[in-house]
Amino acid sequence: MRSIIGRALLLSIGGSQLAFSQTVSAPQSEPLEGVPVSTNIPGAQFPRVNPDRSVTFRVHAPEAKFVGFRIDSIYAAERNAAGDWTVRTKPQVPGFHYYWLIVDSVRVNDPSSETFYGTGKQTSGIEIPEPGVDFYDVKNVPHGEVRERWYYSSTTQTPRRAFIYTPPGYDRSRVRYPVLYLQHGGGEDERGWVEQGHVAAIMDNLIAEKKAKPMLIVMERGYAVRPAPAATAPAAPADRFAPMAAFPDVVVNDLIPMIDSTYRTLTDREHRAMAGLSMGGMQTFQTTLNHLDRFAWIGGFSGAGGGFGIPGAVALDVKTSYKGVLADSAAFNRKVKLVWLGLGTAEPQRMHDGIMAFHKALDAAGIRHVFYESPGTAHEWQTWRRSLHEFAPLLFRAGTEKQTASGGAGRPRSGT
Amino acid sequence: MRSIIGRALLLSIGGSQLAFSQTVSAPQSEPLEGVPVSTNIPGAQFPRVNPDRSVTFRVHAPEAKFVGFRIDSIYAAERNAAGDWTVRTKPQVPGFHYYWLIVDSVRVNDPSSETFYGTGKQTSGIEIPEPGVDFYDVKNVPHGEVRERWYYSSTTQTPRRAFIYTPPGYDRSRVRYPVLYLQHGGGEDERGWVEQGHVAAIMDNLIAEKKAKPMLIVMERGYAVRPAPAATAPAAPADRFAPMAAFPDVVVNDLIPMIDSTYRTLTDREHRAMAGLSMGGMQTFQTTLNHLDRFAWIGGFSGAGGGFGIPGAVALDVKTSYKGVLADSAAFNRKVKLVWLGLGTAEPQRMHDGIMAFHKALDAAGIRHVFYESPGTAHEWQTWRRSLHEFAPLLFRAGTEKQTASGGAGRPRSGT
Repeated sequence: MRSIIGRALLLSIGGSQLAFSQTVSAPQSEPLEGVPVSTNIPGAQFPRVNPDRSVTFRVHAPEAKFVGFRIDSIYAAERNAAGDWTVRTKPQVPGFHYYWLIVDSVRVNDPSSETFYGTGKQTSGIEIPEPGVDFYDVKNVPHGEVRERWYYSSTTQTPRRAFIYTPPGYDRSRVRYPVLYLQHGGGEDERGWVEQGHVAAIMDNLIAEKKAKPMLIVMERGYAVRPAPAATAPAAPADRFAPMAAFPDVVVNDLIPMIDSTYRTLTDREHRAMAGLSMGGMQTFQTTLNHLDRFAWIGGFSGAGGGFGIPGAVALDVKTSYKGVLADSAAFNRKVKLVWLGLGTAEPQRMHDGIMAFHKALDAAGIRHVFYESPGTAHEWQTWRRSLHEFAPLLFRAGTEKQTASGGAGRPRSGT
Repeated sequence: MRSIIGRALLLSIGGSQLAFSQTVSAPQSEPLEGVPVSTNIPGAQFPRVNPDRSVTFRVHAPEAKFVGFRIDSIYAAERNAAGDWTVRTKPQVPGFHYYWLIVDSVRVNDPSSETFYGTGKQTSGIEIPEPGVDFYDVKNVPHGEVRERWYYSSTTQTPRRAFIYTPPGYDRSRVRYPVLYLQHGGGEDERGWVEQGHVAAIMDNLIAEKKAKPMLIVMERGYAVRPAPAATAPAAPADRFAPMAAFPDVVVNDLIPMIDSTYRTLTDREHRAMAGLSMGGMQTFQTTLNHLDRFAWIGGFSGAGGGFGIPGAVALDVKTSYKGVLADSAAFNRKVKLVWLGLGTAEPQRMHDGIMAFHKALDAAGIRHVFYESPGTAHEWQTWRRSLHEFAPLLFRAGTEKQTASGGAGRPRSGT
């Protein structure tokens, strides 16, 4: 017991902030393979990514009975005489992955890692570099900003937070910009695209290369419930899908008016897009297809309309779903500038099936859309970074319809 | 072993993002005292703050041998038959506190809590409400923004990140604003004032009440090293004080020029202030007193000049320190509009002594300054939120010198 307390106190000097990281460092004699990952806290030598893209994890836990690291699967670590538990994984897919430790049955974060809000809580994350790929790195190009903004929602009757990407030069220009509303997935929040997704770096780089038009990107909290009846305290929701009900109303009645009155935006539907990943893709189709007077560009990244394979959800009926807007494909194709669907080739079966069903239903109905598959990635951020990187260049261009129908990007499919 | 793996897999559906929080919830039969704290992740019922400001912590850890919660001290938790470990603390001081769990010798975060970069890593944090005090809450007033901006530093030859608070109305106005450079403490980073400090809420509220002038606030990373000689990989620093060496050069040569060329700022010294907490206070005196041609307003929140009691640091010599700018107090008092020193009454002895020594040395030298003590708080964010709330209203006002000398705010001291 003394050793436990002694160790904890060592981490704090006089109860003050002047307590610094105690990270696991390797003994001088041990040759270290690989390099510390970019998602480590400063100074942490583990986890390390090795040349074969395997990861070596390590944590100091002298009194634990079991230490495991959960990434693509659970890896039981081995203890050395000093109480350090180490394990080397199989080679990992490039990109960002959530991971965690299991210490004597408790799921916890790795003290050596930054944390990211995902899986419904703050979770360790690891960035596996992809050789030759830097479209989501911060480079020495003109930078936009990501702005944290609070606003009051009359739908939920609460303050809500959004992050807004403004492109390089926004402050100095006098022009108005189109807007992409971009949503995170279930268990994540408005920080997801900023922190895990690297949205600012992706857009800064695309704009610097003149591959995407300068635009604003709005990322909102996504969860939205109407206030409970008076004298009833709002209960903490057990299911994170249920509390989405009010979100389309928040977007249409609160968020868009706030954005258009606060920023220099183009406010017609031809200059407003919405996209989202997974749950955010569902929300995108739910919001845009019910409000085509507001949106002309639509994207689903590993997320689709029509129930998306969720047990109990209503299946897509092209004649009746979304107030029947899909029923007249010619009218829909004239009105909507872009429908974009993407997924990873390694998605879990349920995700794959839900998205493919929607894709095929659109094909069968003659709804023109772009279809993209991210090679080798699953239901994860590398799929969604690539999706944004493919999707954003198509937005707000007069020739996108023709371009996508002739194979300019992704793998376009033209119905009928 | 099966139970461990079963539990971990339960948290993830098909390896996807659709894995939601598994938080500890109380059985229906157990009466719960207090309320979940605002720093919990959504839905988490623990930790709870009770009416006497004690905290009840709980974590599910059926196979652990020891679970402790470290806040003001370490509280050993008790296990029930279901494997939940619970403990109730002594009453806590209002405000924000870092805390953590110890599970079988491993320091980890509480899965129920948001995390905050402090103590050199991501750390659980808890907000204890202060009855009747809401100056740092998000209210329904006009909101400014916090902007994340990357820029390239020629001093460190790396991209660096800053957060910039812009006041309500910045985008629509044509006026130029004064700037406060505001630094975090050791083991924290540029996120500290935004997330732990609630800087935007404090400023939005002060500005709405017309108690502070609208201003920009720039919060930078603080750690800064010059590039290593060629072919030498920069080593991860073991000591977080050492890597501050290049910070004043970053501020003066890189950060200020970037800010003044990017934002509508007033660029003369009379419209530029710097303040910081703890290590950031040291950095403030180091930067401002060596560059009085750039700054006219100076604040130290639980942080001071002159070595600040750090073993081995050079003690203050008013005749020679900082190029001798303190030697001629009359000239200094004419040139510098405000020197502000604050600390908590419950600071650890070493902090208290370091700050008081600086305070007394300034008094003895006839350097006019405001001195503030935060009642009942230690080396912690409530001291620094209060400090900002006292300091910001004094900035960029013609009458501040007279006002502070006559007791308008804080507890002013006039030397000589």
